[in-house]
Amino acid sequence: MAKQPELDDFRVPFFDEDKKPGKFSLDDFDPSSKPFSSGAKDADKARLSEIGATLDTQQECLHAQQKRRVLLVLQGMDTSGKDGTIRAVFHEVDPLGLRIVPFKAPTPVEVAHDFLWRVHAQAPAAGELTIFNRSHYEDLLVPTVLGTLDAKGFEQRCRHIRQFEALLADSGTAIVKCMLHISKDEQRARLQARIDDPNKHWKFDVSDLEARKQWDKYQAAYRDALAATSTEYAPWYVIPADSKTHRNLMVAELLLRTFAALKLEYPPAKESLKGVKVE
Amino acid sequence: MAKQPELDDFRVPFFDEDKKPGKFSLDDFDPSSKPFSSGAKDADKARLSEIGATLDTQQECLHAQQKRRVLLVLQGMDTSGKDGTIRAVFHEVDPLGLRIVPFKAPTPVEVAHDFLWRVHAQAPAAGELTIFNRSHYEDLLVPTVLGTLDAKGFEQRCRHIRQFEALLADSGTAIVKCMLHISKDEQRARLQARIDDPNKHWKFDVSDLEARKQWDKYQAAYRDALAATSTEYAPWYVIPADSKTHRNLMVAELLLRTFAALKLEYPPAKESLKGVKVE
Repeated sequence: MAKQPELDDFRVPFFDEDKKPGKFSLDDFDPSSKPFSSGAKDADKARLSEIGATLDTQQECLHAQQKRRVLLVLQGMDTSGKDGTIRAVFHEVDPLGLRIVPFKAPTPVEVAHDFLWRVHAQAPAAGELTIFNRSHYEDLLVPTVLGTLDAKGFEQRCRHIRQFEALLADSGTAIVKCMLHISKDEQRARLQARIDDPNKHWKFDVSDLEARKQWDKYQAAYRDALAATSTEYAPWYVIPADSKTHRNLMVAELLLRTFAALKLEYPPAKESLKGVKVE
Repeated sequence: MAKQPELDDFRVPFFDEDKKPGKFSLDDFDPSSKPFSSGAKDADKARLSEIGATLDTQQECLHAQQKRRVLLVLQGMDTSGKDGTIRAVFHEVDPLGLRIVPFKAPTPVEVAHDFLWRVHAQAPAAGELTIFNRSHYEDLLVPTVLGTLDAKGFEQRCRHIRQFEALLADSGTAIVKCMLHISKDEQRARLQARIDDPNKHWKFDVSDLEARKQWDKYQAAYRDALAATSTEYAPWYVIPADSKTHRNLMVAELLLRTFAALKLEYPPAKESLKGVKVE
């Protein structure tokens, strides 16, 4: 009997200062596989809904405690489904308890600072669940592909990212990072679908086609970035994402596990309120 | 046959520079009434869900256009249901398209600026639907009740608020402001329920009881604040809110109407994409 897949089978090996680069290849992960699917779409959706309800309770508990913080980082090529994942996984979670931060191309003011300046400002506060829709990792990937960041600069940024994420973790932030991994064929189909539906043209930018031409360079940059920044306190997971249902389910399972590890409990009752009658 | 209630029956009369103060009393609105309820809870919930789905589509359209902005301001006494309204009304809306801003007691840095400084920073951007969970109106209400803001200061702040909201409106922001109106008895029951359930103590602050002792002063401050800041471009509505189902439904209906007035449409198809084949 085949071994049941475990979430950690999809974790990028932790970066090791001494024996870099780690042995890790995106090719080891099949984007079209569905390791956490039950095989039946309906059952998968029911499970997702069940996890959503648990995440909702967990998030309320996080908020009630006002101690820990949770950060989910979502990265992936165009059309890999970052928006769709957020919509599906957090459908059941109270919107009050979510903060979603989209990182677009930096503004002139942002560029005038170090690359982590705008990111630090958006770090989750005590009691918050924050989702980065793209992130500081764009500042590794894009300039690498454009050729404006050399190997030394890349390594330096990776080191700064590890140190920055360690600061967040030491301050009580549970960090989980997901790379939504789609195949080049699947991206073609999704881009074509957007082009063929005039109502979806607003989602489409011609630069998406330019980025697609650099597919291999992006995959290589992703591999190097993930290998250099997957740590015990901020691990990277590769999410097979050609199937949307599977992608959502796996991200939800990861988040569920992240919350479970926090062992959250509601704050104790206040003795001072015992027997109080409101007038 | 009784006249069907209309949303505008619950609109606070627009402020009129020449004949202030407007004739307006919160006592004219019965907190326990349910003017927009069908009479059957199930039907009301079905209608709310229907509106939620429409709001979801409308919000996507708002985002696609990247022109207009929508701001919902929620105010009300403790336990009036600001959090619950957000949860219920926006359950169906894509979390990507919502930004919820809770305003707590200002920090020292915030107090060191004018009272609109922190509020302006959170105004919705193009394509955004933003909800203020409490707002700049706290800076009228609280100091008035505490006696640290006199009548002249109050009038001055109201004028600044009108001008600030006019700036937002002139820049494309549709503003709708809701005061969740509960009775003093209903508040007693809700506070008592929180005290009696130890798992809800974290929601409870002893200062809530202090504020309750000032009930009449708060109601008077609300009346004056609403009368002086209800304008054509940023109207106030009084929401009978003893019934949670009714409260949610009425806020949803108001927001639906706000979106409808924007006559949003998806951006036109891009000619440049016609016939493009992705390689």
